[in-house]
Amino acid sequence: MCTATNYTTKDHYFGRNLDLEFSYHEEVTVTPRNFRFEFRKAEPLASHHAIIGMATIVDGYPLYYDATNEKGLSMAGLNFPENADYKPEAPDRTNIAPFEFIPWILGQFETVAEVRDALAGLNLVKINFSDAYPLSPLHWIISDREASITVESVAEGLKVYENPTQVLTNNPTFDIQLFNLNNFMHLSTRTPENTFSKELDLDVYSRGMGGIGLPGDLSSASRFVKAVFTRMNSLSGDSESESISQFFQILGSVAQQRGCVQVGDKDDFEITIYSSCCNTDKGIYYYTTYENSQVTGVDMHKEDLDGSTLAHYPMIKGQSIRMEN
Amino acid sequence: MCTATNYTTKDHYFGRNLDLEFSYHEEVTVTPRNFRFEFRKAEPLASHHAIIGMATIVDGYPLYYDATNEKGLSMAGLNFPENADYKPEAPDRTNIAPFEFIPWILGQFETVAEVRDALAGLNLVKINFSDAYPLSPLHWIISDREASITVESVAEGLKVYENPTQVLTNNPTFDIQLFNLNNFMHLSTRTPENTFSKELDLDVYSRGMGGIGLPGDLSSASRFVKAVFTRMNSLSGDSESESISQFFQILGSVAQQRGCVQVGDKDDFEITIYSSCCNTDKGIYYYTTYENSQVTGVDMHKEDLDGSTLAHYPMIKGQSIRMEN
Amino acid sequence: MCTATNYTTKDHYFGRNLDLEFSYHEEVTVTPRNFRFEFRKAEPLASHHAIIGMATIVDGYPLYYDATNEKGLSMAGLNFPENADYKPEAPDRTNIAPFEFIPWILGQFETVAEVRDALAGLNLVKINFSDAYPLSPLHWIISDREASITVESVAEGLKVYENPTQVLTNNPTFDIQLFNLNNFMHLSTRTPENTFSKELDLDVYSRGMGGIGLPGDLSSASRFVKAVFTRMNSLSGDSESESISQFFQILGSVAQQRGCVQVGDKDDFEITIYSSCCNTDKGIYYYTTYENSQVTGVDMHKEDLDGSTLAHYPMIKGQSIRMEN
Amino acid sequence: MCTATNYTTKDHYFGRNLDLEFSYHEEVTVTPRNFRFEFRKAEPLASHHAIIGMATIVDGYPLYYDATNEKGLSMAGLNFPENADYKPEAPDRTNIAPFEFIPWILGQFETVAEVRDALAGLNLVKINFSDAYPLSPLHWIISDREASITVESVAEGLKVYENPTQVLTNNPTFDIQLFNLNNFMHLSTRTPENTFSKELDLDVYSRGMGGIGLPGDLSSASRFVKAVFTRMNSLSGDSESESISQFFQILGSVAQQRGCVQVGDKDDFEITIYSSCCNTDKGIYYYTTYENSQVTGVDMHKEDLDGSTLAHYPMIKGQSIRMEN
Repeated sequence: MCTATNYTTKDHYFGRNLDLEFSYHEEVTVTPRNFRFEFRKAEPLASHHAIIGMATIVDGYPLYYDATNEKGLSMAGLNFPENADYKPEAPDRTNIAPFEFIPWILGQFETVAEVRDALAGLNLVKINFSDAYPLSPLHWIISDREASITVESVAEGLKVYENPTQVLTNNPTFDIQLFNLNNFMHLSTRTPENTFSKELDLDVYSRGMGGIGLPGDLSSASRFVKAVFTRMNSLSGDSESESISQFFQILGSVAQQRGCVQVGDKDDFEITIYSSCCNTDKGIYYYTTYENSQVTGVDMHKEDLDGSTLAHYPMIKGQSIRMEN
Repeated sequence: MCTATNYTTKDHYFGRNLDLEFSYHEEVTVTPRNFRFEFRKAEPLASHHAIIGMATIVDGYPLYYDATNEKGLSMAGLNFPENADYKPEAPDRTNIAPFEFIPWILGQFETVAEVRDALAGLNLVKINFSDAYPLSPLHWIISDREASITVESVAEGLKVYENPTQVLTNNPTFDIQLFNLNNFMHLSTRTPENTFSKELDLDVYSRGMGGIGLPGDLSSASRFVKAVFTRMNSLSGDSESESISQFFQILGSVAQQRGCVQVGDKDDFEITIYSSCCNTDKGIYYYTTYENSQVTGVDMHKEDLDGSTLAHYPMIKGQSIRMEN
Repeated sequence: MCTATNYTTKDHYFGRNLDLEFSYHEEVTVTPRNFRFEFRKAEPLASHHAIIGMATIVDGYPLYYDATNEKGLSMAGLNFPENADYKPEAPDRTNIAPFEFIPWILGQFETVAEVRDALAGLNLVKINFSDAYPLSPLHWIISDREASITVESVAEGLKVYENPTQVLTNNPTFDIQLFNLNNFMHLSTRTPENTFSKELDLDVYSRGMGGIGLPGDLSSASRFVKAVFTRMNSLSGDSESESISQFFQILGSVAQQRGCVQVGDKDDFEITIYSSCCNTDKGIYYYTTYENSQVTGVDMHKEDLDGSTLAHYPMIKGQSIRMEN
Repeated sequence: MCTATNYTTKDHYFGRNLDLEFSYHEEVTVTPRNFRFEFRKAEPLASHHAIIGMATIVDGYPLYYDATNEKGLSMAGLNFPENADYKPEAPDRTNIAPFEFIPWILGQFETVAEVRDALAGLNLVKINFSDAYPLSPLHWIISDREASITVESVAEGLKVYENPTQVLTNNPTFDIQLFNLNNFMHLSTRTPENTFSKELDLDVYSRGMGGIGLPGDLSSASRFVKAVFTRMNSLSGDSESESISQFFQILGSVAQQRGCVQVGDKDDFEITIYSSCCNTDKGIYYYTTYENSQVTGVDMHKEDLDGSTLAHYPMIKGQSIRMEN
């Protein structure tokens, strides 16, 4: 399914793995300030913050998977099957369709604090983009440099959780994901001490034994624990190269390898279609793909951000190998 | 510590992660056929199979970490602390120092079957390269397209294990590593069925739940289980790009992220210094580094393999980013 | 902490482990029909169903831990720290103090269905028995032969959960406990098949390997999984001896041994003070204690159930050994 | 399968669970000093130490499952399928059949130190008791108050392991069982500290969380870890009642409940047929059975130990309930 995370060195980085058994025509897409965002049940945004992220463009509309705006606010939608519950139109609230949620948030706000306030009056309304693009069951992580929140529209209503882990995967609901971390509080990056029994002479036979108990399967609850442990303990230098590398290493710790997650009874397998890492301070969107481990980058500030036309760069796939001889 | 593996599509691939808290001056090194290999206690090899692999070159001698010869035979040494036990010189056997083991094997043999025979008369003798390069406690994986063996010199003597997993990590001894896989036989890439209780209505709330129980920490025993599961279930197309990508994805599943494995009480952390993948049929050695995810390649057949001088290419580090705008 | 469960052969049985680091003066206590139950904020019950169970009698009032009435309805209170949230008096509801909850329910109702209805108007009011007997944070399991429910008064209000497992332990809240069972759906009482890899020849080296992954520690979430697995897969003959034995075996699977659960930093350790098993059809209450494994029984129908005075039998402690010579 | 253990308070105790899907006609059996022990390939013992333990008596010969002699030396045989490898007669060694092993050891020796010496010249010879009583694949624990050893006759020969855990279950071989404990060194009876991440506010929501990771399934490797943890951390008063109780609690932590371990594809299930606890200082053998939790005792010193005839007491089965009214 998917994993999103944040990491901060000198700059702040936001990104995600997209794990699926198929790929739409994803493109790195820059939406400039004067691209007119229409909303089905809310006022349009004629001008707004510029946005960069990964999207499928349909009928000229950028369906963003994850994106960052020019103010450094970031947002990603991740699969949330069985739990996502969108609502009928509510007359007293701002009704936003799930596919409009990222543009509506990133177009207007600069910080998570502002978003928190705006969400108080929001209703995620059950409207699809089109018959060909039906509703996806999603939940979202919204982050700035300081904080992250998780937004879930479930049967009980719209839930907004503080997310101190700054990581999001999929099911179960975020309160259970957070609770589950308690069961791993004893894990450590350090060498374990023998607390089993002082009378037994036990042996640290390998480095890394402080992490024994960390799950390694690719289910969403296990990926959450593994990604949080990796992220919270990550260390990196401040340079762009070091920071990006550490970010992709964090996402790599929960990547999905072809063959390991079979979908239903078919011969389909989920893989990590792409991994992204956006420098939210500089507006540069980096990514790798399952088959292209070289980092590709797009800089939003190299586009005409005052324009009204989407700039888009198809994903580069296939290993780009540097031969030395 | 380290992980080595094999994977076969149309061609056969062999490689490894080198996980350490520091880096020597590793270089991709091609040893041509007429480079004279001296051995401390055995006859020299004036001419031999050409070899490509990662090495530190000291005083003109290639100290290989992992390598492949022009016949497709491959070999890697991995850390084996507390267990590796090298022996005094044995008059009735061929006495090879651990640092000579890769050249001696890859210089002469074409298949694992040949190696198995040769090992019958071998003694791994307790001789270091120099005071500055003391003995490393190692064990080895030796592979051709068809089979792999694990070689361990332990207190009881030289043990040679068939290795049907074609994966090697570190401690414990390989018999225990293989035995431990029995405890994971129920894991699956498929959706689990409810065998807990027919009377309870349990829910497959995520893809990948068939793998629940797979360890995700970075200790050597856990990496072994995770890498074997990933490798044995891997699926890939036959092209070079697809094959290499799948190989690096397998190694990525057990990569070590900076911060997750603290060494002793110091602020040192093991990381995956490099990941290698050698096309053993074509003699092309590919690698990535912790901070450079682009694949770099060196083709042994582009060198003068009848020469007598080492060709060597320092590791390319630092992200090589392809900017799109 | 504690574990409660149900089991049905020819008759229906209900009981629990009480796990604590100390023991009050628990007694098997029969409350006859005409013992007057006063309630702090509700109408008294001058006559009611007779009740048998384990209680501490304070000032003539039976503070029941777990009990069954003459109609076969049963109820037990289990520790629920941090989560239990009792409320101020609510004018429009029936206000029952936690210590009154078992008498109020068992005094009036015959089935879980009746209880479900009654709970709709209930408020668990924040009133302690006395300064010497402060409020305990509890949640409850209420069972008849057909069904069980779990009742939790938490910050959001009074929650009533269907409990198909018929097991209750302690934290976390019951919705999370139930959800967590999904992670164990692959466990089985049968011999596992090798789904890890067809290419590896893995070995079923022990009976019971289908259960690998079942937790064995004594935390409340782990005891819940273990007790549910044991209960749901239990098999027993129909006789009283067989049924009771199987019941105590289920409770034994999650018993707490002295030394294994340290309380805080003190040299106090939780142990299973007593295990109970009530034949709810016959009104016979059986129990064992940590140090007395012989089953002791009290038959409510041997008491004057039309009386107004409590009958009580102090717990028999200390091994009662049958010497054969 | 089975679990054996030791525990010492003022006195020393030795015992085991016998886990099987069927029961032979087990009896507590006292062999007095002048019962003549014949051996198939070794000199008979016309007089010897008196022995008490659980046995099936066939043709007047006590086939002991577990036993203790009047000097306090104890021994139990536990199932060891696939691994036990008995040998042809060896002319230069003492050839003892597996079914003779307990009488031969307990008849002659007082301490584990003496046994260690005697085992140097021993050969476990492949001779069955009779066609109706074929060879059982077994390994053994031999204990005195100070120490325990594990004896395994495997393909490589007779192995004698020091056993600091004083626990034995079944497969795998004892070296692997001991090694596996290293993976649990971080378990503790204490409340865990949050070493996962200082930046996350994790919650100790239950007592006993220091043991998270302890296995709870009934396979032999899991029972070993659970029983060792329970035993090594056990605390008990010194009295006979307290000591026995703690011993049976340790064994109870790895008892097998009917329904939880299916044997093959049949509707057979392993259960804990009996649990024994011998006070090796006083020569009193206590036991409980699956269906009789009351402790039954037999005192060897109440028999004529200078006699030549077996004294035997059939196992008491079926709950012996103490009714209070």
